[in-house]
Amino acid sequence: MISIENERLSRQIHFLLEIDGLKQVLRRSLILGSSRRENSAEHSWHLAMLALTLHEHANEPVDLLHTLKMLLVHDIVELDAGDTFAYDFAGGKTKAEREEAAADRIFGLLPADQASELRGLWDEFEARTSAESRFANAVDRLMPMFHNLADGTTTWQMAGVLPQFVADRATAIEEGSDALGELAGQILRQAQADGLFGG
Amino acid sequence: MISIENERLSRQIHFLLEIDGLKQVLRRSLILGSSRRENSAEHSWHLAMLALTLHEHANEPVDLLHTLKMLLVHDIVELDAGDTFAYDFAGGKTKAEREEAAADRIFGLLPADQASELRGLWDEFEARTSAESRFANAVDRLMPMFHNLADGTTTWQMAGVLPQFVADRATAIEEGSDALGELAGQILRQAQADGLFGG
Repeated sequence: MISIENERLSRQIHFLLEIDGLKQVLRRSLILGSSRRENSAEHSWHLAMLALTLHEHANEPVDLLHTLKMLLVHDIVELDAGDTFAYDFAGGKTKAEREEAAADRIFGLLPADQASELRGLWDEFEARTSAESRFANAVDRLMPMFHNLADGTTTWQMAGVLPQFVADRATAIEEGSDALGELAGQILRQAQADGLFGG
Repeated sequence: MISIENERLSRQIHFLLEIDGLKQVLRRSLILGSSRRENSAEHSWHLAMLALTLHEHANEPVDLLHTLKMLLVHDIVELDAGDTFAYDFAGGKTKAEREEAAADRIFGLLPADQASELRGLWDEFEARTSAESRFANAVDRLMPMFHNLADGTTTWQMAGVLPQFVADRATAIEEGSDALGELAGQILRQAQADGLFGG
């Protein structure tokens, strides 16, 4: 590799090469057509496109730049912590701890001001206390529902997930957007009619 | 699939499901570690992260939101037109025509106001006449150089690309950012020293 004299630029490039690894972190969701599992990098791009296209449906006005930044960085901790399936209740217990350590290490590769900004965006996404984070979480939860329904065979079935768990998780969609929450309800009813649940 | 009564939302969702296919468009570049070729969706995410992290190095001040939007949509036409390798001079001749038709169809799935906005962003990226598009093109051209150098075995070698072609293409990096142009020069010299070119 080349050596970069400018210390700030060197740290930035190191970070950017490191996060290339997100292309190899696999989620439970399949891409449309079900040919393979989705990775966290392409998932992050897709969510950014959802925000760009659907932000007019947010319950409260959202700052689009802020929302996009949050969605671009929201899964970077999975580089170290891996993707924890939303219905993996055992893994869910250690998720916070594993992801905190990952955030310290990975965002810490950046110059201090940027480390702090990106870490703050990730914390905000997790906390769901701002309008932007509520909307960002809504699109994050909506998209896998479409993937499941479109493919006819679902990660819910494979993992034996009960409809009630999915419905509970989907309530966070309404918090970000009534219109998208309504869509999620439609998808759930259709999935139940199609027998796409476990249990 | 569910049917969505709200015509505007229905068009938006149709577009968002359609562009899921970008996860299956393969580029020539390999991801770091060379285990497989990179797809255009994860590539777009990575470039958005480059812009977010490196925009302070742009030659002219850039509007970050505008730059991110441009990078998120810049490869969507490849859904229909496929990825054209930068050094495929035969494919290059028909690229513009194939991509124009793709832009008409894919952005045309959206409500008219959004179709026009996203189409405009893509046109702007291609034209390289704004500060944002010059910077966006700079990061688009820089990243594959890192991929090639880091992996030791390069798509340049595989395709028999001469250093002069890569150097010509890299001049557009300087137009967007002197600091990144300098990096590109360093990478080129290192790649030549390491014998990473064809010809």
